[in-house]
Amino acid sequence: MRTGTTPAAADRERLRLWSPAGAIQEPERLEQAVLHLRALGFSVEVDTRALRRVERFAGTDTQRLQALHAAARSRAGVLMATRGGYGLSRILHRIDYPLLHDAIVRRGQAWIGHSDFTALQLALLARTGAPTLAGPMACADFGDACPDEITVDSFVDAVHGRQEAVGFACVDAPRGLDREGVLWGGNLSMVASLVGTPFMPQLDGVLFLEDVGEHPYRVERLLTQLVHAGIAQRQKAILLGGFTGYHLHRHDAGYDLASAITWLRDALRAARVPVLTGLPFGHQRTKLTLPHGVPCRVVRDGAEVFMLFEHTHD
Amino acid sequence: MRTGTTPAAADRERLRLWSPAGAIQEPERLEQAVLHLRALGFSVEVDTRALRRVERFAGTDTQRLQALHAAARSRAGVLMATRGGYGLSRILHRIDYPLLHDAIVRRGQAWIGHSDFTALQLALLARTGAPTLAGPMACADFGDACPDEITVDSFVDAVHGRQEAVGFACVDAPRGLDREGVLWGGNLSMVASLVGTPFMPQLDGVLFLEDVGEHPYRVERLLTQLVHAGIAQRQKAILLGGFTGYHLHRHDAGYDLASAITWLRDALRAARVPVLTGLPFGHQRTKLTLPHGVPCRVVRDGAEVFMLFEHTHD
Repeated sequence: MRTGTTPAAADRERLRLWSPAGAIQEPERLEQAVLHLRALGFSVEVDTRALRRVERFAGTDTQRLQALHAAARSRAGVLMATRGGYGLSRILHRIDYPLLHDAIVRRGQAWIGHSDFTALQLALLARTGAPTLAGPMACADFGDACPDEITVDSFVDAVHGRQEAVGFACVDAPRGLDREGVLWGGNLSMVASLVGTPFMPQLDGVLFLEDVGEHPYRVERLLTQLVHAGIAQRQKAILLGGFTGYHLHRHDAGYDLASAITWLRDALRAARVPVLTGLPFGHQRTKLTLPHGVPCRVVRDGAEVFMLFEHTHD
Repeated sequence: MRTGTTPAAADRERLRLWSPAGAIQEPERLEQAVLHLRALGFSVEVDTRALRRVERFAGTDTQRLQALHAAARSRAGVLMATRGGYGLSRILHRIDYPLLHDAIVRRGQAWIGHSDFTALQLALLARTGAPTLAGPMACADFGDACPDEITVDSFVDAVHGRQEAVGFACVDAPRGLDREGVLWGGNLSMVASLVGTPFMPQLDGVLFLEDVGEHPYRVERLLTQLVHAGIAQRQKAILLGGFTGYHLHRHDAGYDLASAITWLRDALRAARVPVLTGLPFGHQRTKLTLPHGVPCRVVRDGAEVFMLFEHTHD
């Protein structure tokens, strides 16, 4: 029951697609995504600004900001980014954080995306503590004829508050691993780009990271910033997802992603922060939907690692 | 006159080449550089570790750290990096800063380089206040048959303490420009990678920036980190050097480096920080040698901008 002044609770069957960052390059992928999401039972609406283009962006900064605020005011319960690209960094200082906090914490909206979207997730967590979902986006993950089954199942379960745990094969979890902390992170480039800014959460939690198109030495440099800033050392655990889409050169002479991970592990040895690989998350077909800003317990069970989530809503 | 316990003053005619980061890919460029530097009147010595290779690096972290400390202890007055690449970030926390401070401030050593070398320059400034030179490196700038004349002249003048001012054509300096502050900066990716770490100088100065191989949206994201961290706003002026070696895509649809610079200027309008372009510095043939960590006055004179340096030694 609503009074005249209380906005309606958000409806998790109602999903809005909006464009926070880059202009959509293949509109047919968005159309395909709408069909898939409808088939999953969602009532899907596409923000009127979603297909705009101004240079490489889905509209001017002001237009994308309006799209964000309109989404927060809408009755939609699931707000999915159409795609990433680059664009949220430019508007972080102009976002109405109390509006979003209210929409998420009081009205139950679930905001979802990854890649550039990480900037919004971290800023929301830093400024308001509001949780979001790190997970699929329309064009990348629902734009094909056959979306990935695990991606779809995890997304649907997470959105409906039914995902209490996820597990994944992990070759490097220490025996007896059992760590607990607020789950946060996402795209490493975006996380590093917020170090030293008011949009960086100050957390001793479980940090998950992924990236695309970054040579391992660049991945290492980004990780090194987290180490030199003292951020990596104070985490309960670090979970690495996919690091994809880079090319090694002859000059690397054996240096590769494994070298960068070894460097990180060595740097964190004294602080005893376990660094685990294999998290199904990133710029890859199979990605879990992870609750961002929510307490999470990470435990090893044989050859698998399980992430157990505490539910803050639903 | 020396006593037994006082190390000799560094000799600015004596130049040592050392490798702080990436392994040398073309040793013949180093040989060529030695000939050019000798022709300029320097007694040139090549660190015994300079041609090492471990994966993509010029030796292990410990070996490169030893090369750095050996250079600081040497009688050479000019310490020039053979090349950049990537590698100093990994050893910043292991450097003997008092040793370097003593070598530079008390014994008059001039350390010179750019690109990855920026990390050492910023760390030295942050931890000890010691000045260095942002300028040419052996393989990049002296490895060809004919080094750039302006690059050579500025280098020689700076090393011998004779460079009191440099000027460059600038189309966007505000009328009446006259700003003063400690000159600092270098490679934008490296500057941004130190935000939030103990190796970042806390300065309200004159910040100069350049980068290579970064798409304008990435340049913008790096600049945005400096804005969100409040660093850009408190500078007296920002001088942009070369941003080179990137490729635009059809999808950029008009977005380019100028868009990123416009974004920066808009973000700094309220703080009244002038953003000037055209500084001859970066990954380009013609580069000035700039005194890093030294007070600098930036003034406009007609179509040119002059940087006037206060000399801290020599």
